Amino acid sequence: MDTIQPATAMYDNDVTCRTLGIQLDDLGPGRARMRMRVAGTMANGHGSVHGGYLFLLADAAFAYASNSHGPAAVAQHAQVTFLRAAAVDEELVAEAVERGRAGRTGVYDVTVRRASGEVVAEFRGQSVMLSGRPVNGPGH
Amino acid sequence: MDTIQPATAMYDNDVTCRTLGIQLDDLGPGRARMRMRVAGTMANGHGSVHGGYLFLLADAAFAYASNSHGPAAVAQHAQVTFLRAAAVDEELVAEAVERGRAGRTGVYDVTVRRASGEVVAEFRGQSVMLSGRPVNGPGH
Amino acid sequence: MDTIQPATAMYDNDVTCRTLGIQLDDLGPGRARMRMRVAGTMANGHGSVHGGYLFLLADAAFAYASNSHGPAAVAQHAQVTFLRAAAVDEELVAEAVERGRAGRTGVYDVTVRRASGEVVAEFRGQSVMLSGRPVNGPGH
Amino acid sequence: MDTIQPATAMYDNDVTCRTLGIQLDDLGPGRARMRMRVAGTMANGHGSVHGGYLFLLADAAFAYASNSHGPAAVAQHAQVTFLRAAAVDEELVAEAVERGRAGRTGVYDVTVRRASGEVVAEFRGQSVMLSGRPVNGPGH
Repeated sequence: MDTIQPATAMYDNDVTCRTLGIQLDDLGPGRARMRMRVAGTMANGHGSVHGGYLFLLADAAFAYASNSHGPAAVAQHAQVTFLRAAAVDEELVAEAVERGRAGRTGVYDVTVRRASGEVVAEFRGQSVMLSGRPVNGPGH
Repeated sequence: MDTIQPATAMYDNDVTCRTLGIQLDDLGPGRARMRMRVAGTMANGHGSVHGGYLFLLADAAFAYASNSHGPAAVAQHAQVTFLRAAAVDEELVAEAVERGRAGRTGVYDVTVRRASGEVVAEFRGQSVMLSGRPVNGPGH
Repeated sequence: MDTIQPATAMYDNDVTCRTLGIQLDDLGPGRARMRMRVAGTMANGHGSVHGGYLFLLADAAFAYASNSHGPAAVAQHAQVTFLRAAAVDEELVAEAVERGRAGRTGVYDVTVRRASGEVVAEFRGQSVMLSGRPVNGPGH
Repeated sequence: MDTIQPATAMYDNDVTCRTLGIQLDDLGPGRARMRMRVAGTMANGHGSVHGGYLFLLADAAFAYASNSHGPAAVAQHAQVTFLRAAAVDEELVAEAVERGRAGRTGVYDVTVRRASGEVVAEFRGQSVMLSGRPVNGPGH
């Protein structure tokens, strides 16, 4: 529980998520779930939601999951596969789960789904802990 | 030149870039350069620019570069390595160049720099052409 | 079952896996498990198993999982995070599971573990079906 | 110059490269070029070179480039896009160049080409220095 407090304090300072109406629905050790409604200002030149906002939503869930253990962690690397388009006004949910940790490195998977449950994007992020005790393993 | 017209028409419809003040500085076959000033609303819970916006800027440059040949192309996959933080009010420039194409697949590299020239993030995107003639090669 | 036959026929022709002693332990729709003992010839300049062989093992499991549905599929993109080193003579197991499919694109996750269960590497691959009926969705 | 010596000593211990006949053609600060002939034992179930060996060749070039500065560096993350198939007996060349460094993190691009110059695969790797002085920047 104590380890979760920094993450909720983090949300209070998270101007990006609050400006975009991204809500933190659930938070636990190594996991987070966030929700965003696609605004009209999030469309790309093809008329569907800009991939940058899909990434941003997933990246936000990743940030909360990777900071859920207490010591501050930052993103080092992330990748996303876009599987389906999403439209303005759709509500999207990003669910982040911890895949594994070694040393100061953590790997997190985030799935972005539309309300019907269809997967819009699969994201994977790699974080590094800035302080605190490394997890067992020769990881870097 | 003609191949560039669809890309500039694309910018007129690009609500995301225009809302965020992302400018299209340069556009040519297989390349694009875009510019964004980090707004106060783009901060993350740690106080620097949200990684989602760094990705979004790079992804936008990738979209214009991959659509510069004429036939519409969409992003399939993208990855980013975050090398340095950037702060509110900094101006960031994303430069996209084509790495290669085969079949309907294209690979594009985007470097995001701050005004001093320091690299903030390195992005690589993979696009797929939705129509038009595939480039020579057994690519998919 | 019928959909699995092409995959086992594929193993008979898989000179790489048979030469390296990589065994196909389990195979089902969208999943595969493979096993490899680290040979003395697989060491890198630092004295542990070469990352290329860790990737190769994961990539092999990915190939069987993505071909398990029948229509031939090939790898388009793959990424790997190295979490722990592994030594000569260790036995490694790679477990591939399907993350999702849309259109002709599939996403597969592969975890490589040592005998103790510790995770050595996390791999994610994106495949494209060369023929057959696309899965529901505007995927490419 | 001195910084290159550890890398050549590394080659003497590199059982993988020497066993597979992978040659180190060129080595300099932040770059390396390696060469491999596709052996009959490197075929996959589809009859072309196994993607694992394409990755391995690129990963080897990445390792030498990222160790060329002196302090030992190891791979943390790597990704590859497969653009064209390659056949048994073809000679492949992997050229690694440094994309950038910050803190202990380095980013390297490797292009794998066949003799005709056609690109077979584009690889990007992220390394971490295990010791030595970090490069200027708040990188992690």
